[in-house]
Amino acid sequence: MSLPILARSRRTRATPFTARVQANGVKAYTVYNHMLLATAFASVQEDYDHLCQHVQVWDVSCERQVELRGPDAARLMQWMTPRDLSRAVVGQCVYAPIVDERGRMLNDPVVLKLAEDRFWVSIADSDILLWANGLAVGAGMDVAVDEPEVYPVAVQGPKAETLMARVFGEVVREIRFFRFKWLEFRGHPFLVARSGWSKQGGFEIYVDSHELALPLWDALWEAGADLQVGPGCPNLLERIESGLLSYGSDMTRENNPLECGLERFCKLDGPDFIGKAALAKIKQEGIARIVRGLKVAGADLPDCVEAWPLTVDGTYAGGLHTLVWSPRFDSYIGVAMMERAFWDLGQNVTVNVPGGEARTAVVCAVPFEV
Amino acid sequence: MSLPILARSRRTRATPFTARVQANGVKAYTVYNHMLLATAFASVQEDYDHLCQHVQVWDVSCERQVELRGPDAARLMQWMTPRDLSRAVVGQCVYAPIVDERGRMLNDPVVLKLAEDRFWVSIADSDILLWANGLAVGAGMDVAVDEPEVYPVAVQGPKAETLMARVFGEVVREIRFFRFKWLEFRGHPFLVARSGWSKQGGFEIYVDSHELALPLWDALWEAGADLQVGPGCPNLLERIESGLLSYGSDMTRENNPLECGLERFCKLDGPDFIGKAALAKIKQEGIARIVRGLKVAGADLPDCVEAWPLTVDGTYAGGLHTLVWSPRFDSYIGVAMMERAFWDLGQNVTVNVPGGEARTAVVCAVPFEV
Repeated sequence: MSLPILARSRRTRATPFTARVQANGVKAYTVYNHMLLATAFASVQEDYDHLCQHVQVWDVSCERQVELRGPDAARLMQWMTPRDLSRAVVGQCVYAPIVDERGRMLNDPVVLKLAEDRFWVSIADSDILLWANGLAVGAGMDVAVDEPEVYPVAVQGPKAETLMARVFGEVVREIRFFRFKWLEFRGHPFLVARSGWSKQGGFEIYVDSHELALPLWDALWEAGADLQVGPGCPNLLERIESGLLSYGSDMTRENNPLECGLERFCKLDGPDFIGKAALAKIKQEGIARIVRGLKVAGADLPDCVEAWPLTVDGTYAGGLHTLVWSPRFDSYIGVAMMERAFWDLGQNVTVNVPGGEARTAVVCAVPFEV
Repeated sequence: MSLPILARSRRTRATPFTARVQANGVKAYTVYNHMLLATAFASVQEDYDHLCQHVQVWDVSCERQVELRGPDAARLMQWMTPRDLSRAVVGQCVYAPIVDERGRMLNDPVVLKLAEDRFWVSIADSDILLWANGLAVGAGMDVAVDEPEVYPVAVQGPKAETLMARVFGEVVREIRFFRFKWLEFRGHPFLVARSGWSKQGGFEIYVDSHELALPLWDALWEAGADLQVGPGCPNLLERIESGLLSYGSDMTRENNPLECGLERFCKLDGPDFIGKAALAKIKQEGIARIVRGLKVAGADLPDCVEAWPLTVDGTYAGGLHTLVWSPRFDSYIGVAMMERAFWDLGQNVTVNVPGGEARTAVVCAVPFEV
């Protein structure tokens, strides 16, 4: 099967950086929040090697911001998440699962507290703007819900701090993990957070100036020439090794956060939120499945682009949702949703590959450990 | 610039028919409601010629259904749209713009009334499930909001009725435009509507049986062999000539339905709906822009994948959002959002093509008239 072409249209939005991403030799895109997101430049493996050694600049504009602003902004934000936000401070980023009234995952954004009455919800791939605004309109809340013109750029990798210090000044070194500061570039203040969708360290710049978008992008590249700055994007291999889950792939609206291994972000005896009673009931009864890692034997597997059934002696044991070859583990590694009877670490399972082939695999923890 | 590759993952969902679409030689996909949608087989032009002469089977599974079910289903459905649904009957399809409290377009689905207390909202590309459920949770409504396992297949073209009669029986000929019946195939009742996203006539089958999905698909192909049944998909050329707007391309959340030429679907003195006051105010003050057709001179234009600015003597006159070469009109034709001062039919404008080229164009009506 040849590789599918992505047909372009205004509906799958370009970003202020798309011309640069093209010039950098992007190999493939996905569509994320109705917007282009690169998935590889040299190759997933080569991009990974570079990311773990140097520094990369990522166009993650598709991390759209849902802004909540006004007297009821804080109340709406807390209502949407099981995460206890009562002690979150201005300048903080908070990973906050969003669930519905039945406790089902709708998204897993990072929430940026800009002010006591203003938040940016930096979303995964679902239209949380519609959820937030639906709740606000339905409940008659006094809050404006919008998608501001903000295009995040991630600077990731072990040399990220050095590069960022050259562009934004030494003050970037003071930014703690999951905190942000407003730092100037050419006189415009940009929100700079120590965050990003890799475990290699780095920052995200929330670019809210169209005029300065490309000058900032180019400044990062110029300042990073001797650091071997390169193009990059969220990397399938790195994110699976690191145990970073992708909403829509590793977990969906079919799953609750307890199944997704996100219980530590769910405060069931804290502030009220939508789905609190449902999650409390699920916790009391015990979950039926949980996210696990899987090491799959052998080589030459096709791409896993839909749920592959896992079985034990013919009984359904779970679904494999993501898969990648890891040289570090000398094995395919993947993310699966394992049924309760088969979720113990060390459990052997059969992977039923589309087309009829069967492979053996073993259940393990995420993040993967050497 | 080479054509971009679409990277696959579970997040951009396959459909029950994807293997058949691949086997039919799909040339390119887009992603629509987090799901694969083909955009061309032979080519847009050849697909168009075939569609206008014969019959095609389209995998439009990405037309996801949002089901509203329960005591408050009808109240929620009416609350979401300016379309007056008070006289809609069971068995009817209704084109119903969905707007927010500021009167901005969120989607333009076809609503299927399955029962007095049950609707399928057959959506364009935005997560209306989250909007509907947010409203329901916020307002404390007694309604279940779900995405059922329904995968629409469109049978389009002048021979569609003949083909459908062979598979579902002569009764299909009795189905009126935008009405539906439940018709059996291998003992399972399928919702069959006379509808579809072309003006060549045809039907949509709402496939809610995984088991029968491929048997039904294959039965359509076998029964249509002598009718020259072929693969197809929503066709850029046909839909622009016919004036079918695409949400996200030709209109977005930045636009209200009056600007989109949808005033006849907005009953401002009818039942209450979200955004009623906002739309009444917009109507009273007069709209600032409107959707128009554009004929653009010359040949060899690049694909229009983002808004191209239109100017008159250097003044901004509108944005061109979609463009295609039409042999029938011997011209490029496109869909634009024209500012009030420049929206008269016959107005000449300059199209500012990315890269610096300028072309002349003339404003005309949609649908295009020969």
